[in-house]
Amino acid sequence: MKVAVIMGSISDMPIMQEAIDILKAFDIETEVDIVSAHRTPEKLFDFSKNAHLRGISVIIAGAGGAAHLPGMVASMSPLPVIGVPVKSSNSIDGWDSILSILQMPSGVPVATVALNGAKNAGILAAQIIGSHNKNILDRVVLYKTGLKEAVIIASASIQK
Amino acid sequence: MKVAVIMGSISDMPIMQEAIDILKAFDIETEVDIVSAHRTPEKLFDFSKNAHLRGISVIIAGAGGAAHLPGMVASMSPLPVIGVPVKSSNSIDGWDSILSILQMPSGVPVATVALNGAKNAGILAAQIIGSHNKNILDRVVLYKTGLKEAVIIASASIQK
Amino acid sequence: MKVAVIMGSISDMPIMQEAIDILKAFDIETEVDIVSAHRTPEKLFDFSKNAHLRGISVIIAGAGGAAHLPGMVASMSPLPVIGVPVKSSNSIDGWDSILSILQMPSGVPVATVALNGAKNAGILAAQIIGSHNKNILDRVVLYKTGLKEAVIIASASIQK
Amino acid sequence: MKVAVIMGSISDMPIMQEAIDILKAFDIETEVDIVSAHRTPEKLFDFSKNAHLRGISVIIAGAGGAAHLPGMVASMSPLPVIGVPVKSSNSIDGWDSILSILQMPSGVPVATVALNGAKNAGILAAQIIGSHNKNILDRVVLYKTGLKEAVIIASASIQK
Amino acid sequence: MKVAVIMGSISDMPIMQEAIDILKAFDIETEVDIVSAHRTPEKLFDFSKNAHLRGISVIIAGAGGAAHLPGMVASMSPLPVIGVPVKSSNSIDGWDSILSILQMPSGVPVATVALNGAKNAGILAAQIIGSHNKNILDRVVLYKTGLKEAVIIASASIQK
Amino acid sequence: MKVAVIMGSISDMPIMQEAIDILKAFDIETEVDIVSAHRTPEKLFDFSKNAHLRGISVIIAGAGGAAHLPGMVASMSPLPVIGVPVKSSNSIDGWDSILSILQMPSGVPVATVALNGAKNAGILAAQIIGSHNKNILDRVVLYKTGLKEAVIIASASIQK
Amino acid sequence: MKVAVIMGSISDMPIMQEAIDILKAFDIETEVDIVSAHRTPEKLFDFSKNAHLRGISVIIAGAGGAAHLPGMVASMSPLPVIGVPVKSSNSIDGWDSILSILQMPSGVPVATVALNGAKNAGILAAQIIGSHNKNILDRVVLYKTGLKEAVIIASASIQK
Amino acid sequence: MKVAVIMGSISDMPIMQEAIDILKAFDIETEVDIVSAHRTPEKLFDFSKNAHLRGISVIIAGAGGAAHLPGMVASMSPLPVIGVPVKSSNSIDGWDSILSILQMPSGVPVATVALNGAKNAGILAAQIIGSHNKNILDRVVLYKTGLKEAVIIASASIQK
Repeated sequence: MKVAVIMGSISDMPIMQEAIDILKAFDIETEVDIVSAHRTPEKLFDFSKNAHLRGISVIIAGAGGAAHLPGMVASMSPLPVIGVPVKSSNSIDGWDSILSILQMPSGVPVATVALNGAKNAGILAAQIIGSHNKNILDRVVLYKTGLKEAVIIASASIQK
Repeated sequence: MKVAVIMGSISDMPIMQEAIDILKAFDIETEVDIVSAHRTPEKLFDFSKNAHLRGISVIIAGAGGAAHLPGMVASMSPLPVIGVPVKSSNSIDGWDSILSILQMPSGVPVATVALNGAKNAGILAAQIIGSHNKNILDRVVLYKTGLKEAVIIASASIQK
Repeated sequence: MKVAVIMGSISDMPIMQEAIDILKAFDIETEVDIVSAHRTPEKLFDFSKNAHLRGISVIIAGAGGAAHLPGMVASMSPLPVIGVPVKSSNSIDGWDSILSILQMPSGVPVATVALNGAKNAGILAAQIIGSHNKNILDRVVLYKTGLKEAVIIASASIQK
Repeated sequence: MKVAVIMGSISDMPIMQEAIDILKAFDIETEVDIVSAHRTPEKLFDFSKNAHLRGISVIIAGAGGAAHLPGMVASMSPLPVIGVPVKSSNSIDGWDSILSILQMPSGVPVATVALNGAKNAGILAAQIIGSHNKNILDRVVLYKTGLKEAVIIASASIQK
Repeated sequence: MKVAVIMGSISDMPIMQEAIDILKAFDIETEVDIVSAHRTPEKLFDFSKNAHLRGISVIIAGAGGAAHLPGMVASMSPLPVIGVPVKSSNSIDGWDSILSILQMPSGVPVATVALNGAKNAGILAAQIIGSHNKNILDRVVLYKTGLKEAVIIASASIQK
Repeated sequence: MKVAVIMGSISDMPIMQEAIDILKAFDIETEVDIVSAHRTPEKLFDFSKNAHLRGISVIIAGAGGAAHLPGMVASMSPLPVIGVPVKSSNSIDGWDSILSILQMPSGVPVATVALNGAKNAGILAAQIIGSHNKNILDRVVLYKTGLKEAVIIASASIQK
Repeated sequence: MKVAVIMGSISDMPIMQEAIDILKAFDIETEVDIVSAHRTPEKLFDFSKNAHLRGISVIIAGAGGAAHLPGMVASMSPLPVIGVPVKSSNSIDGWDSILSILQMPSGVPVATVALNGAKNAGILAAQIIGSHNKNILDRVVLYKTGLKEAVIIASASIQK
Repeated sequence: MKVAVIMGSISDMPIMQEAIDILKAFDIETEVDIVSAHRTPEKLFDFSKNAHLRGISVIIAGAGGAAHLPGMVASMSPLPVIGVPVKSSNSIDGWDSILSILQMPSGVPVATVALNGAKNAGILAAQIIGSHNKNILDRVVLYKTGLKEAVIIASASIQK
């Protein structure tokens, strides 16, 4: 029950931190690293081939521009890979990140979340673990109750 | 260890059948239904609120156009929801399906796959189950080996 | 002759306030609330199923990103629903909001206005009421006369 | 309680016929005409300035390409105008039709429906009339019940 | 040999001023006005029907969003109409302005220039006049020589 | 009073023929040629530098893909250049043709018409000549009357 | 002086054949193979790491959808890599292929050619070799002369 | 072994400087100039026709908007031309620059890099020279090693 949060560049960290934070809130252990598909391909191989042998259950991978990290990890790991398209400075409004993560060929899925959606990637990882772990599932239910209550408070505030 | 495969309209069936078929190949039980967010909202509620209580682990939801089904299921179920953007006849090149499934707000992720990527949705569901089920994980590894071998055969064929 | 103005998040309020203000200028009663399709689905159901029984004539619903609120309200209410695509911070230049509100399937229309077009949503609601209320119709005519005069003044100002 | 269905060109007729047919099903009187913003501007003026004086309650206007008809009618009529972006042969995947109908400036709304969504335009017109006509409102409710039943039948068919 | 420079809103003036300035540099008389297709349709009619009778040779029309002004003028005037897509605040990155000016139907052309390209609209008007006026043609040639010299100076500056 | 109609490839001929035909209908002399910016750059230079010295008044240039012909002619000729974006087989839905013709830099305008809008290019050329030629201007007025009558006939036909 | 032509799938062969054919016409030796980034990652590594040690000068890599092959090869080989975006059946009008090949991060360029532009990839490879090989450079010059002559013949044919 | 770095306007210099800097780091001689396709067409011709006769091996050309410089150089030079789409102030999010450089017709390739990717253009030029120059090839290998080490340091920094 460990989630790996990796990213292609340290510049992705401010976005990816949201995944780490929400996983901490769910009390799920994380391991964080920078793995660049284009600059450290050997590390990419090692990481991808061994993650499931090291007790990792889910991999969250964030990258921007021509974002190959999530798809390349998915090509070598049997684990579910969640891809976070990051709107990096060299991105064309995020379209490049989204399409190069989402449009994976048949046989090699990446579970893509919204542009800069690292927080949702963390929640999705929790839901994946929760699908077979009653304790985490209960926390997901609790989290959704919290979302609802925040809206109720906001609703009350504008009625005044 | 059951996967629900739902879709917004019977016209999505030819695409969504690929998810059902690949899950069958992984020997994972499926339940298939039509649940329209816009035409059967009560059924949407019942389905979403109870799926995790009925032994379902993962939900695959396919829809086209302004595709609200995956996101609405995700708003009510604690389970991981995989969204399949279907390029329906009323779609604008698929962009509407993709964006209305992918761009979910913070707190309510949908694991989005490629346009018409129902097969990949099935494989992703298998990977989610495999993340805590050694038997299924082994089948995922085997499946990836099969992909590789198909390429090797194709490679050999063009060398001649 | 009451218009409900709802929105998916309190962050939509600065945009949606323009609908409230213009309806006030037309002397049309409004009711304002936050109804999140993804975080308060039960409230969404209650609101949508009962609005027409509570004396509401027109519903204005604003939302951003994968904006499901207008379409989901339209799926459950027989009233005309006006959708306002909000360019929220997590939106891809507004395309996601527009397409997930506009591209509704056959049978469930949403009357979509321009990106961030809450003011026009208010005017459209007035026109809908005016279509069977001579008093409001006269005000719409008057309002259009005002638009014209503003242009005439601007035209005069640049001639000098 | 009459709805005008106009279009920019006779080539829009196959699409716009769906609006006429569904309005007939709701037992709402229609008037149909070709009014080209670009080729018959005088007719456009006459139509727009007088529609509300001739007993028309709602105007449905369909056009393709640089589609100015709905917006120009809206600039001169106090009635609610529903715009149908038609994917004509000279259209760029429909984007031109959509954007030139949807993105109206402040003060002059057009209630835009999906690309080629003439049927939904007819239903929206019925909902506008239904907002102050109990008989038509009841038919809208009935129509939505019919949509639901069609899904239930489809759902049953795939369970076998 | 007079060019009319019109625009849909006074907010377009900062952009459209560039057309006025360059025409002044070419010593071509201009007439400037605000003509809103959506707010002053009668003025639009009067202007368009009479421009060629009042000694105007070319019309430059700028507008943003669902920009109907250039196309509507072109529908009623036999003169060449140059359309300037303005990236107004309510525009979607300018795509709406561009497509609603460019994609005119068969029979009613608008000579479209680049987004915010008012200066080029002025130069194009000069070229149109120059096509039958040796004096203005010579100035166009001279202007192009000036463009070349500016590049030569810039080129020299970076060689140092 | 001669119009040159040039194109980048013989494959553009079926589209560009519409410009030639409509100019013939206006009784305007045309000269037709293939001038490839990328394959015959010398011819491009000769053509562009000399067109105005050979009695040509307006140049119509059609091209597809990365369409450099209209802009390169405009860079070397003082005449008004009308650009026709052709949706060639190697085009991405026409966006490449449109943007590489429309978005010319300051100083070098191209009068761009709709995608595949060669007929409108011909009419625009007639309007440019008509701006200083009463005979052609009258024909443009007549042509617009013809457009109107075609709509009136179509309108009558659907009333039956 | 050998060029490797690789592709992600045998379904890319009909497009990629054009690169092979034109290289043959330039009398440049080629080696052809299928190397799938997502299905044969080990082969991808072996190929990329060793190509420059095996006497290959230039690599042409074609792929569609989320096309990671060209970029991943570029991440591991010091040779110039030419990327061909293939419009595969699972592509969204080719945008995904283009953006995931073109938008490479700083440090790892891919020389991208037009959508389905395999022929141009072959010519570019010849130009790269020609940049230091007088014989091939002369053939490139000759080829361009051939292009010119084809246009001259086409031009003559339409003059008749 | 000289690389020419040219650009359409001095405003492209801040972006293009990155190509010059990285080439300096590789110890490759550069020649820098402004060559405007639209404002100095004669210089464009002279430059393109003679570059290969003056000892230049590779041409890097940067331009924005309707960016014709790279393609026009490629039409006249047998050398490999690397195109840098610059996101200039008059660009539509860079799409115009990208498409007018990338989508070159068959026979005339431009090696296109990412939006504003001048640094990558420089590296690609080095790789092209390195394809037949062991010294430069070794530097490319060394540069890639440097990229890797930077990631390793970043990775270490976030582990603390």
